[in-house]
Amino acid sequence: MSSATPTAEGPRPSWVDEAAGSGFDVDHLPLGVDPRHGVLARIGPYALPLAVLTTVVEQRAERPVSRDHSDLFAQPTLNPFLAAGPEAWAETRRTLQRTFLDFTAEDTVRPHLVPVEDLDLVLPFEVADYVDFYASLDHASNVGRILRPDSEPLLPNWRHLPVGYHGRAGTVVVSGTDVRRPSGQRKPPHEASPTFGPTRRLDLEAELGFVVGVPSTLGEPVPTSAFADHVFGVVGLNDWSARDIQGWEYVPLGPFLGKSFATSVSAWVTPLAALDGARHPLPGQGEVLDYLAVAEPAGYDIAVEVVLDGEVVARPPYSSMWWSPAQMLAHLTVNGASLRTGDLFASGTISGPERDQRGSFLELSWGGREPFTAGGRERTFLEDGDEVVLRYSAPGERGRITLGEVRGRVLPAL
Amino acid sequence: MSSATPTAEGPRPSWVDEAAGSGFDVDHLPLGVDPRHGVLARIGPYALPLAVLTTVVEQRAERPVSRDHSDLFAQPTLNPFLAAGPEAWAETRRTLQRTFLDFTAEDTVRPHLVPVEDLDLVLPFEVADYVDFYASLDHASNVGRILRPDSEPLLPNWRHLPVGYHGRAGTVVVSGTDVRRPSGQRKPPHEASPTFGPTRRLDLEAELGFVVGVPSTLGEPVPTSAFADHVFGVVGLNDWSARDIQGWEYVPLGPFLGKSFATSVSAWVTPLAALDGARHPLPGQGEVLDYLAVAEPAGYDIAVEVVLDGEVVARPPYSSMWWSPAQMLAHLTVNGASLRTGDLFASGTISGPERDQRGSFLELSWGGREPFTAGGRERTFLEDGDEVVLRYSAPGERGRITLGEVRGRVLPAL
Repeated sequence: MSSATPTAEGPRPSWVDEAAGSGFDVDHLPLGVDPRHGVLARIGPYALPLAVLTTVVEQRAERPVSRDHSDLFAQPTLNPFLAAGPEAWAETRRTLQRTFLDFTAEDTVRPHLVPVEDLDLVLPFEVADYVDFYASLDHASNVGRILRPDSEPLLPNWRHLPVGYHGRAGTVVVSGTDVRRPSGQRKPPHEASPTFGPTRRLDLEAELGFVVGVPSTLGEPVPTSAFADHVFGVVGLNDWSARDIQGWEYVPLGPFLGKSFATSVSAWVTPLAALDGARHPLPGQGEVLDYLAVAEPAGYDIAVEVVLDGEVVARPPYSSMWWSPAQMLAHLTVNGASLRTGDLFASGTISGPERDQRGSFLELSWGGREPFTAGGRERTFLEDGDEVVLRYSAPGERGRITLGEVRGRVLPAL
Repeated sequence: MSSATPTAEGPRPSWVDEAAGSGFDVDHLPLGVDPRHGVLARIGPYALPLAVLTTVVEQRAERPVSRDHSDLFAQPTLNPFLAAGPEAWAETRRTLQRTFLDFTAEDTVRPHLVPVEDLDLVLPFEVADYVDFYASLDHASNVGRILRPDSEPLLPNWRHLPVGYHGRAGTVVVSGTDVRRPSGQRKPPHEASPTFGPTRRLDLEAELGFVVGVPSTLGEPVPTSAFADHVFGVVGLNDWSARDIQGWEYVPLGPFLGKSFATSVSAWVTPLAALDGARHPLPGQGEVLDYLAVAEPAGYDIAVEVVLDGEVVARPPYSSMWWSPAQMLAHLTVNGASLRTGDLFASGTISGPERDQRGSFLELSWGGREPFTAGGRERTFLEDGDEVVLRYSAPGERGRITLGEVRGRVLPAL
């Protein structure tokens, strides 16, 4: 574990006074990418291109820069920086924090700040493999009750391993990308054969994604204790789903076209180091096989909001997740499967025990049978024109930090 | 469709007389990659680095080279050439064929030929997304009978769509790579809870893989008629499987760690153009939804051999496959999922109706209950030290062509 721990200066205010209380203060500093500026760190309503950071620090000549990472920052993706590993991540974070906390740096650095609204943020990293887990007990139980009402809701393997599957890496898109309603084969139970057409059950899934920086060797498992040696940070993630396509196709090899049309992630990647204050014990796990044993607190206390056309329709608590991300990573690699820079793995839908804590419309409308109210009318699945925003926040060193939001609007089918 | 059709010179003999009858004559010309030479075309026991092709042709000054693709060939992967599209593929193939058929070219070109045994062939392309289908009726029926003996062997969706799922792109390895026996959770039916350890049911799956060159646009399906506009060629593929791990994990989201430890592909990629003579009608497909309609012959007559420690243990016929690769591609994209250069999709296990045509040990040993004989003794699943070779051949213009083999040895678990 070499993630940055808060420096002594951590809790002090920054000279970027607009950052105070914004959720993007010096205790957060998420990274994003814009084609003109390369890699940037966000602070309050601004972002600092990291390619200028080294130059600025050298100009001020106050502290020697122990290693020059500037070649990692003038890049169209975070991948080279992700691959550089925990020491480079921590050093960059320390340099950023010192720069923003040192009031004598303001005159030199402020001219380089770019207002966030002037950025054209792109997918912050090239996705290598994308794996989606199913780590919420409440979500898995709800789905079991909805789809298999006459059986035990949880399948026998669920409490023994974090169930997961590979999704399509090539259709991961950045927040703000419109999502076209997919067409495909659907066969409702009362019809004899499938028909082709636009999905009638377009859904969202509020999830958290974990971004791998440091690769691993084929054949060698990554233990839970090495989580922070490989994972750089966290993104918000919406795993868009077409429930009718998925319901017809998914036996016996799992979800495919019901998911592969789009997965949206936030433009900002929050470093794990910024979530140290959000660590939270796992809620209910008993004994697990040795390779899944994990040092507590292994969970995260992150509040999620599902916003439909401006109205909050659910507040799923990440703190209720059964499996921790360190366990997901250990499971993913226990067969020797190797990691690459840019691998993305997601938690699966986040749902809590209460009705208003469900992170999908499938659950909020109980399979479409119990509509919920939004915008003053009854709703079941997503409609053309709907705009979905997922918001995330967590305890930080200076109040709550706001993780990158995930925004997407539904376009009608072709 | 702009794949190369055989030129008038096609059937003539080449000056590379060692190529005659080798399976690698001028009618084949598969491509591979070696770090020292970049992209190469194989002819008989030799390979020609394509980066020298343009120079050689210009030196001879007999025919103008209409476009210079040499920048596509001095590369560590086929991806730039794959992305260049069908015209570049066809032009390169024509130039190669002319060069090898023109006996006056021998003196200039022969010095550039590299013996195949001197090559250090690497994974020929960077895999973007990897999708595995389940397109053999006999395989799907066998698996259904073995795993669910009391139910209908084929699930209701199977004849309506090519069932498929995403696999792990990062663990696709080139032929010749050793494969370590994976460990994981296994729970035989008679045990109360899972245990952790090396798989006891390590298996192979003899498949064919299709390599995508030209990307598509997110949101826009690729019709079956555009197959050859996107797909460059074909590789042999072994989808190594751990049946006990897979059996415990795979509900409800499909195979994951039971497959993700390794997938082997051949080092040589056979262009679709070389398989024109192997086209074969699909065996039994009735009416399908419009987007899956396909011009016949849409299948391929490719003979496969599964070789265990030097002994052929099965001969699965690709001609028996129910779904064609053009249908797999159309299905994969019908929801708007986009293609990237380097996408790989595989057929699923190739099995024919006869016992000795089964492309997996799961089927050859009927779930381990009916051992088969190899090396003079009874066998069920793969043992440490076993060497598996998959061999493929098909009708070409000058006799049978030999597709790239897929070789791998089983190492003991860590």
